[in-house]
Amino acid sequence: MTMSMNPENTAKKLSSGSLAPGSAPAPGSGHTIAPASPAGTESPYAAEVRLRQRLVQVALGKQLADLVIRGGKLVNVYTGEILEDMDIAIAGERIALVGDANACIGPDTEIIDVEGAYLTPGFVDAHYHIESSRLAPWRHAEITLARGLTALVEDPHEACSPGGLDAIRYFLENTQGLPQKVYVQVPSATPPTNVETTGGYIGGKEFKQALEWPRVTGLGEMMDPPRIFGNDARTWSLVKEAISAGQPIEGHGGFTGNRLAAYASAGIQSTHSPNTPENALEMLRQGFTIQLKAEREANTIKKLLESQVDWSRIGLAVDDRPVEKLLELGSLDHEVRLAIELGVPPVRAYQMATINNARHWRLDRDIGGIAPGRYADILVISDLEKVAIERVFASGKEVARNGKLLVSLEVPDQGNRLAPSYALDTVKLRRKVTADDFKVPAPVEITCRGQERVWVHALVIPPFYFSDDLEAITCKLPVRNGFVEPALGTGINKVAIVERHQGTGNIGLGFWRWGFERGAIAMSVLHDSHNISVVGANDHDMAVAVNRVAAIQGGIVVVENGRVLAELPLPIFGLMSDAPPEEVAELSRAVEKAAAGLRISVNGEAPSGARPEGEGTAVNAGMSQIPPDLAKTMEAKPVDVLTFAYLTCHPRKFVLTDQGIFDIRTEKRLPLVW
Amino acid sequence: MTMSMNPENTAKKLSSGSLAPGSAPAPGSGHTIAPASPAGTESPYAAEVRLRQRLVQVALGKQLADLVIRGGKLVNVYTGEILEDMDIAIAGERIALVGDANACIGPDTEIIDVEGAYLTPGFVDAHYHIESSRLAPWRHAEITLARGLTALVEDPHEACSPGGLDAIRYFLENTQGLPQKVYVQVPSATPPTNVETTGGYIGGKEFKQALEWPRVTGLGEMMDPPRIFGNDARTWSLVKEAISAGQPIEGHGGFTGNRLAAYASAGIQSTHSPNTPENALEMLRQGFTIQLKAEREANTIKKLLESQVDWSRIGLAVDDRPVEKLLELGSLDHEVRLAIELGVPPVRAYQMATINNARHWRLDRDIGGIAPGRYADILVISDLEKVAIERVFASGKEVARNGKLLVSLEVPDQGNRLAPSYALDTVKLRRKVTADDFKVPAPVEITCRGQERVWVHALVIPPFYFSDDLEAITCKLPVRNGFVEPALGTGINKVAIVERHQGTGNIGLGFWRWGFERGAIAMSVLHDSHNISVVGANDHDMAVAVNRVAAIQGGIVVVENGRVLAELPLPIFGLMSDAPPEEVAELSRAVEKAAAGLRISVNGEAPSGARPEGEGTAVNAGMSQIPPDLAKTMEAKPVDVLTFAYLTCHPRKFVLTDQGIFDIRTEKRLPLVW
Repeated sequence: MTMSMNPENTAKKLSSGSLAPGSAPAPGSGHTIAPASPAGTESPYAAEVRLRQRLVQVALGKQLADLVIRGGKLVNVYTGEILEDMDIAIAGERIALVGDANACIGPDTEIIDVEGAYLTPGFVDAHYHIESSRLAPWRHAEITLARGLTALVEDPHEACSPGGLDAIRYFLENTQGLPQKVYVQVPSATPPTNVETTGGYIGGKEFKQALEWPRVTGLGEMMDPPRIFGNDARTWSLVKEAISAGQPIEGHGGFTGNRLAAYASAGIQSTHSPNTPENALEMLRQGFTIQLKAEREANTIKKLLESQVDWSRIGLAVDDRPVEKLLELGSLDHEVRLAIELGVPPVRAYQMATINNARHWRLDRDIGGIAPGRYADILVISDLEKVAIERVFASGKEVARNGKLLVSLEVPDQGNRLAPSYALDTVKLRRKVTADDFKVPAPVEITCRGQERVWVHALVIPPFYFSDDLEAITCKLPVRNGFVEPALGTGINKVAIVERHQGTGNIGLGFWRWGFERGAIAMSVLHDSHNISVVGANDHDMAVAVNRVAAIQGGIVVVENGRVLAELPLPIFGLMSDAPPEEVAELSRAVEKAAAGLRISVNGEAPSGARPEGEGTAVNAGMSQIPPDLAKTMEAKPVDVLTFAYLTCHPRKFVLTDQGIFDIRTEKRLPLVW
Repeated sequence: MTMSMNPENTAKKLSSGSLAPGSAPAPGSGHTIAPASPAGTESPYAAEVRLRQRLVQVALGKQLADLVIRGGKLVNVYTGEILEDMDIAIAGERIALVGDANACIGPDTEIIDVEGAYLTPGFVDAHYHIESSRLAPWRHAEITLARGLTALVEDPHEACSPGGLDAIRYFLENTQGLPQKVYVQVPSATPPTNVETTGGYIGGKEFKQALEWPRVTGLGEMMDPPRIFGNDARTWSLVKEAISAGQPIEGHGGFTGNRLAAYASAGIQSTHSPNTPENALEMLRQGFTIQLKAEREANTIKKLLESQVDWSRIGLAVDDRPVEKLLELGSLDHEVRLAIELGVPPVRAYQMATINNARHWRLDRDIGGIAPGRYADILVISDLEKVAIERVFASGKEVARNGKLLVSLEVPDQGNRLAPSYALDTVKLRRKVTADDFKVPAPVEITCRGQERVWVHALVIPPFYFSDDLEAITCKLPVRNGFVEPALGTGINKVAIVERHQGTGNIGLGFWRWGFERGAIAMSVLHDSHNISVVGANDHDMAVAVNRVAAIQGGIVVVENGRVLAELPLPIFGLMSDAPPEEVAELSRAVEKAAAGLRISVNGEAPSGARPEGEGTAVNAGMSQIPPDLAKTMEAKPVDVLTFAYLTCHPRKFVLTDQGIFDIRTEKRLPLVW
């Protein structure tokens, strides 16, 4: 355990932790993580065995416990009961006994009486992307531990887009010895599709290598049905390795009918985003477990409450949440609270956030319940329904009280840098971009007409557009001097995706319905490829914004009239910051505010700018409107929406990448203008 | 799949199956099983991937199903519902779709309408010892497949006592390609204790090697608390490898309080024999799953029905059952039937026998439910409560109808022998035994008195004696010519355990309360060391019986007056027969009958033989009686009782092995006479 009890001491100290949670030897210092048992060194599991041998003796009363927690009402997530008069005896990081601890109490045993409070296991998030918090993992632990999140299963597919296996290595190293246990899945979608460029690549060979490392588990969310259904070689090599290693294969999204059967046939057994109550029930019936983000699946939870399904197959997960929302709402505690508000019986809600997730991940020998042999991850809760967490014990130590962290966390030596060198300097442009790079030439047959101004048809895909209907998103845009222009007056902006991993110089151009009237916003957070996206009202500001993102080695930058209005540096893989969480949250709010200031209502009235001229309006009368809820979010939090708006995974159909616009189901390129 | 549809054809054919269930390449022919992906050959998982790719296309309606089962009431064990109008589309060995199969039905698709019958998943036994059936695994499949047992998790700790890793190899090879999926645990108790001699040895290194083989899963039942609690090096090296590989660690027995906490602290998470309802509930609360043999845990099932525990953590298991009982009662179907009779709601009873066990074993991607991607193991049941199985589909083919096997099973080439050479010739005596080998010399200080006849104190441990009380099982036995004699008149016989694995010549002698009046019974089935046990009324018959067991290379032999009355040859590891099940059952009944004929009532009146003479009776007045139920079983089925009577595992305290009598908790030797 590498914690200091001095909360002021946030200096990073050399940690002797291993990749396994706990106190085993450090891995080799080479670029490749040492496997579980490198020749000639102690296995990192040897320390666990020694501790378990000690637990046995404590349980038998032949050695003494370090800590006994008593006087609580134990929420037994295994049986669904609430039991009184159960002492919890702890030795080192783990629980030795739950019951009558008198035999193992000695003069040096600390005794904590929680005076009738509830005792629950620490929360376990079953599907999580730390990158979305914008925080380095240990910084993320600083704010979520106090929320009761003592373990999570990270899918680092964001960081793997730039970093490949190095990103997995980073998560393991940055969290080694932390009281928050971070298990790491191997992403299945690096690259996210075959039609975009990333730095990392994870195929069967890389998956197999990663599985040698402690705390690495499972094949991450399979979010690319076209490649599964189309026998893509890389995708199926991952499936083969998962089957061979007996590892879970995680799912993503909601399916029904034949596509659900096909998805399950590939060996996929879970989803965290069924999307509709009907999908959720159908997927449970077809053998899936589900891990719900209560915030977005309220209807699903209500529907499942009406059914009589086995709830041991249903868990909770946060998936993605930016730092400012973590500070405002909480972590998995927020989902538990929402679930209870939606009518889930409280004990069941805690089961969903603890043992159900641990069982899904086969981690229930270590986490998810209060029982001998498990990590001593225990929440002291005064109000079960409100999830009022008074104290948090993690790995046998009290780490937080009343929402405040009591300990300072440490990360291993990173050579006095923000992160290990392999996690930095990941934004690689071929050269600085210029305004000209964002010009969209009109097709030759149109410019050849010799007219000063003509119209072209253009694809303008609104964010979160899941329809098959291309006509509804086809509009007419003006051509000036041989180049197609956006129609700012109707909310249509020029957008681009600038490749940043390999220095290919790829720039994918498009028009999307964002409604920015001024300036430009660029960012290296672009799910899931994490190239640089930029949207702007003019090509010059777009170029300034992209170049600034490159200059700060990743982050979010808002520009107007050539000047940076606000920026959030994210130098770790271009996605995360090592700065204190409050500081990152503040900068995040600042870029949101600056970005919102560049915007008009996307579904609103004609703006102050010139309307497009020519035959009819530029935007087809029937073109689909942005749903009002989304439009509202876009007005308030455009950056948040922008980061997810270029996703290429199911259930999307038309996507923009650094390589152009594609029908993702066929991987066929579509013309931007014609 | 290696099945022929000709039920008459029972000739063994060369199988091209792999160690994985299904149709992958054969392992290397060397003595060591090839690992999952030997260099230069196709991984056995490649075939599974190819089939899953086909399933995907069938599910999407782009390829056609081989078989569609329709018209049934689907027992959905995932949700606990019964659903109608669900087609099951099958391609090869697995299910491609559950729902509307119209899109994948073509002219060559076989359609079976089950006309309103129930459809349940095939049964999965969570804890099983095929050896106890006395049948070779493929012969065991011949009778249990028709009972709906399409998968089981074997713990070969019986066969590993003689065979070590070779026994694991045998189970894998003998079942490769069978429609009954046999998964194999690695036994934790080879040798069963430190105070007995076996042929096999399984430590951390051997465990790790076995885990490389497909279908090998988990560390088998930990039945040796003294070694767990006492930091035994071999035992803890197994724990370490299980932790390192993320493999389940199976439990055994019922525990409570501090010992339960100690047991759980070692990382053990299940039990199949809680023994009492109170233990069962306490163990569930402490994070265990349980797999109940309904036949012996009726009270536990009733108690759990009164509680509100989460039943997803409770399964069913047969553990041990000899062939004649399998034929009479059934396999796991019998446990399901009993559970329903005890009040378990029918769908829940089926969950206990299917998905709950598959989840426990992390095999739910392949077995335990009717869903896409799983093996097509499906039971057609006319009466859910009576478990009336009309048809059995296994790995996509109908294998049994109305209790009759429809296919002939095949085993791989064994060189025209009963079994591979490494599984034969495992009974190795140093030399033939003689009557003198069974003489018990009286202690020197007694014989030195120079009297013709004196008494000695002797330990006489009744079968299944779990008490700490030594006094209650101490009696006085007569000495004649310097040797201690049994007291046949009070049911006390001489017994011996003759080492048979290594030819050490060890013979452990004892007196036990069996009540045999004539002859002798010897057998190489002796849980768990499987040395040769012999019990008899005279030393000569004992020697004849032991030598006959050696001559037939293992089995059960009943002798009277130097003549073999009945024998059951078990030449495979001295435990199993390759003969047809009915034949083995017949011989088994014959040896039981012959053995019972040698016996008098153990708690009954004075027998016809001479009573022991001298001061008082030979048997202390207070000496504990055999419980009436057990005495009844012993009268009817002495062989069945004898096979288990010398167990050395928890909760036993005093044991007889080839090395003598021991207090198993301390591993200290006790005197037989004094």
